Amino acid sequence: MRISELVERSGVPLATIKYYLREGLLMPGEASSATQASYGEDHVQRLALIRALTGVVGLSIQKTAEVIRLIERPRTDLFLTLGAAIGTLPPYAEDVPGENPRDYPLARTVLARHGQIYDPDYPAVGQLDRALAAASAAGFPIDDDRLDHYNAHVRAIAEYDIAHIPDESAQSAIEYAVLGTALYEPVIVALRRLAHQDLARHRFIADTAGT
Amino acid sequence: MRISELVERSGVPLATIKYYLREGLLMPGEASSATQASYGEDHVQRLALIRALTGVVGLSIQKTAEVIRLIERPRTDLFLTLGAAIGTLPPYAEDVPGENPRDYPLARTVLARHGQIYDPDYPAVGQLDRALAAASAAGFPIDDDRLDHYNAHVRAIAEYDIAHIPDESAQSAIEYAVLGTALYEPVIVALRRLAHQDLARHRFIADTAGT
Repeated sequence: MRISELVERSGVPLATIKYYLREGLLMPGEASSATQASYGEDHVQRLALIRALTGVVGLSIQKTAEVIRLIERPRTDLFLTLGAAIGTLPPYAEDVPGENPRDYPLARTVLARHGQIYDPDYPAVGQLDRALAAASAAGFPIDDDRLDHYNAHVRAIAEYDIAHIPDESAQSAIEYAVLGTALYEPVIVALRRLAHQDLARHRFIADTAGT
Repeated sequence: MRISELVERSGVPLATIKYYLREGLLMPGEASSATQASYGEDHVQRLALIRALTGVVGLSIQKTAEVIRLIERPRTDLFLTLGAAIGTLPPYAEDVPGENPRDYPLARTVLARHGQIYDPDYPAVGQLDRALAAASAAGFPIDDDRLDHYNAHVRAIAEYDIAHIPDESAQSAIEYAVLGTALYEPVIVALRRLAHQDLARHRFIADTAGT
């Protein structure tokens, strides 16, 4: 298809498509003449992915380009590729001034106790460490019992996620890892708040009925 | 204690304490002379709460004031008070232009299927609705099977939370609800990303070993 049709099909303005082409986020079309190029379904899909990453996920163009580089040239090790792709998602460690990126003792202790790997270069390690520190600083430290309980159920959720990784290509696995992580987290936290409401209502109605 | 000691004990600067007094976030001290007031442990604790809400939780002064109003004058119905307190937390519906706040059909369907109450005035309902819509828009809609699985485990987490609500006062229950919701969410999402890493490593190492 011509670029005008790509604009129509994708809903992405022409100037934006040209920008993505210049920045290497969108692969070039096939040259059909000296001044025209032809685009295909892969371009429509790529634009949808860029729109999801920069839109609902909220990544910068720079972070979006990182994800796309990983899709175009996945490392030989898919595990490391997925880790790098998820590492493009916020929260970013550089947001926290004075952070020491070498070690995360709070996260290290928790992961050791749960028999999980501890890799300080994986951004979620610092994320867990900061979240635990923030809870303590606010006077609501998370004790081992609560962490064990949370982790068991979170792991059951993660098992479902991992069992459903599409395995037809590295590209689809990377898309699922990045978008599934970013898009399903807000669902999970909203479900928790709604479960609180539902459970609290039962509890307080039961209390009232009992007195 | 005098206000200078309150500054020292709380670590909050004098100008900030005076601002909190003017805004009604901090209750006045007991007048000990025409120009001096005396402060107690409740002032130290209140400043710690304000610091947690405006600091690690990231609430505005206005939203912090809402939480404190609920603590000082809880409604007769603790359930509604807790709901209103949690409603001060982001994400806020007003961030989304063009949103219709009357009905959230995606969330309504999910909650009905799980036999949970549907109250469109409870902010988490709109939050779930927007999260489900965003996942669909990005081409990763959440099907019923995944939602059922997520919800069962999220509910088990919420049951632990509700079972541990401190019941000595409305104040402590409100503090726990707001801070526990805001501070434990980042822990839960970090644990999920870490479980993904741990599970993916096992899966991809197993795959490699098998080939």
